[in-house]
Amino acid sequence: MDLQIIASLKRPADTRVVLLVIDGLGGLPRHPGDQTELEAAQTPNLDALAARSVTGLHEPIGGGITPGSGPAHLALFGYDALDYQIGRGVLSAAGIDFDLQPQDVACRGNFCTVDASGQVTDRRAGRISTERNRELVDQLRQIELPDAEVFVETIKEHRLLVVFRGEDLGTAVNDTDPQHTGRAPLEARAGDHGSRRTAELANRFSEQAREVLADHHPANMVLLRGFASLPDWPSFEHVYGTSAAAIAGYPMYRGLARLLGMDPLTAEEDPRAKFARLREHRDHFDFFFVHVKKADSTGEDGDFDGKVAVIEGVDEALPDLLAAEPDVLLVTGDHSTPWSLASHSWHPVPVLLASQHCRPDGVQTFGERALIGGGLGPRIPATHLMPLAMANAGRLEKFGA
Amino acid sequence: MDLQIIASLKRPADTRVVLLVIDGLGGLPRHPGDQTELEAAQTPNLDALAARSVTGLHEPIGGGITPGSGPAHLALFGYDALDYQIGRGVLSAAGIDFDLQPQDVACRGNFCTVDASGQVTDRRAGRISTERNRELVDQLRQIELPDAEVFVETIKEHRLLVVFRGEDLGTAVNDTDPQHTGRAPLEARAGDHGSRRTAELANRFSEQAREVLADHHPANMVLLRGFASLPDWPSFEHVYGTSAAAIAGYPMYRGLARLLGMDPLTAEEDPRAKFARLREHRDHFDFFFVHVKKADSTGEDGDFDGKVAVIEGVDEALPDLLAAEPDVLLVTGDHSTPWSLASHSWHPVPVLLASQHCRPDGVQTFGERALIGGGLGPRIPATHLMPLAMANAGRLEKFGA
Repeated sequence: MDLQIIASLKRPADTRVVLLVIDGLGGLPRHPGDQTELEAAQTPNLDALAARSVTGLHEPIGGGITPGSGPAHLALFGYDALDYQIGRGVLSAAGIDFDLQPQDVACRGNFCTVDASGQVTDRRAGRISTERNRELVDQLRQIELPDAEVFVETIKEHRLLVVFRGEDLGTAVNDTDPQHTGRAPLEARAGDHGSRRTAELANRFSEQAREVLADHHPANMVLLRGFASLPDWPSFEHVYGTSAAAIAGYPMYRGLARLLGMDPLTAEEDPRAKFARLREHRDHFDFFFVHVKKADSTGEDGDFDGKVAVIEGVDEALPDLLAAEPDVLLVTGDHSTPWSLASHSWHPVPVLLASQHCRPDGVQTFGERALIGGGLGPRIPATHLMPLAMANAGRLEKFGA
Repeated sequence: MDLQIIASLKRPADTRVVLLVIDGLGGLPRHPGDQTELEAAQTPNLDALAARSVTGLHEPIGGGITPGSGPAHLALFGYDALDYQIGRGVLSAAGIDFDLQPQDVACRGNFCTVDASGQVTDRRAGRISTERNRELVDQLRQIELPDAEVFVETIKEHRLLVVFRGEDLGTAVNDTDPQHTGRAPLEARAGDHGSRRTAELANRFSEQAREVLADHHPANMVLLRGFASLPDWPSFEHVYGTSAAAIAGYPMYRGLARLLGMDPLTAEEDPRAKFARLREHRDHFDFFFVHVKKADSTGEDGDFDGKVAVIEGVDEALPDLLAAEPDVLLVTGDHSTPWSLASHSWHPVPVLLASQHCRPDGVQTFGERALIGGGLGPRIPATHLMPLAMANAGRLEKFGA
């Protein structure tokens, strides 16, 4: 659904909508024919909620497509990930809570190793420690550029963020990473007229970085890629008319939410702490995005029992969320992270929507196989969920007369 | 899903994917409330496979749309039939295994009857026999054209294929078939500059055909339609990164597969023979399209029991397919051909996908009504199936970070 159509239908209401994302929620059976992580978990509270909800499974992007965290969350917020693509530089900035401004151009940097002739011999500088990264980033901060500010921030290991701030900075600049060892870093070139200054700043930064880092082998050079600016997207509030807060422990998710104009609220990585934050701010916002990370982390570790325990922890804490009395509650994941693949996957993701106005479907348990029979169906596009939540919250007008 | 997005996500893997198409698989009950052809068939092997698969029913094109064989197969290969349309001339060439070249323009010919004034009195020349067609095609092969080759091939009854081969041949040429009797064949005219030579060749061919056939009433003239060239589509290998073979008894299906760059392998029209070919070539290709025709033919004959027998024959032979140990196996039809309609239909088509990484859904039998409860849902677009198969085969990267 086109977001401008949704935006044209929004209307105010005194209702609270909560989206609880259990990251990587969907899974796969321990043995063929056996239970998935979610099915194996003891979830009396989620089951009771499912029994009075409309339920199903959603598909983040499309059949067979495994989403990254960025596209998967955008889809849950109603933004089709194929239409709303985030540049790597912007995602990197979001990932470390860097407060990117509209005139900024951000890019991902890698410390790398170059030999005496200037050719790259290791594109990741031997994966230096994050601590060493911080020391070297401190050195790089002495770099000064004409008529522009530059910010350098540690991400992790060999990865850093470089942000240029100034007037008239386009983003049509190639990566300086040559992609293969045995080649010199590439010169940054402007792909359009408006990006000439960006290319010039990138080249000056690279030259000075080479001098500053000369004696710091193996991290004696920097490669830049994914030049990008804050996307000019309609804000969440513009689309749905709700003030919105993001309660997330990991900066990446706060950063993503900030891209849509949500207010990021920090919280400990414990469901009870997050649900407490929700109750605390219950009257300050219309919409809350609450993010629980560890189901994904344990899935990526291939830890069936660990993922079961995280899900059970959320279930135990659920009364703390329900105490905030949301008018509409969506519980789902951004994507599946089955223990057996130890990675994100393409499998549809469990979802329930509880509200006074939903049409319960007879599903009594919150598990992958039971949810196939839910009223939302086994493959509802993720982008349909947020308009559905807003409709249940009385926040969407009739379309047409 | 845009094929270029799929292509951008492909990655290599040492896995085998098999698509088994039981042509016209879907059906309708013998009596209201009774079993369909597939439900009536004894299919212990397909049922056992379904029990460890993710299952459902697919829709080839869209709600209520009955597909031809071309669009239905393209959709199974992931090519949306509304975006990838095949000209009639090219489909006709595919149907008789004619090895069309990129510079060729193909069109469908009909033998017709004209009266002394040159007006068409029968657009199908009394549906002459295929044998008579062959004799007349032999006559037409004496036609020579300036600076171009022309190929004339029998299709069936009054139908023939005409292919012009030369430089600079566009396809924007109108049909010469006037569509109604009592009118003269139309002159071929070029719809654009690049098609002028094609129109000229078509007119010269028609004039000479009139002379050659003058004494062969009722087949004393030829009408041409559906001028078309090989489509410039991304190949199956470009999209998915797999080498691909087509194992089919009927030339039409080999021809279709060849349009996508698959290697056609001939085989007898018996499932065991085809599955033997599959095992023989198991290590030479990444992807196999295996086609079984007779379920469609019996459906088109309105033969309920005949179709049941064909399906049971496939089921009996299935262990021979499983012996090839595909990593991912899709079993489905290209469309439904219910015995009671004796034609292709719009009804959703049974499908199962078996792989180590699929999420089984609890469906225990391979029949239309049971499959409604499958994890793929009762109406998954056919174009989603191939990306899903490739994801299960470990052949698609994550989308976005």
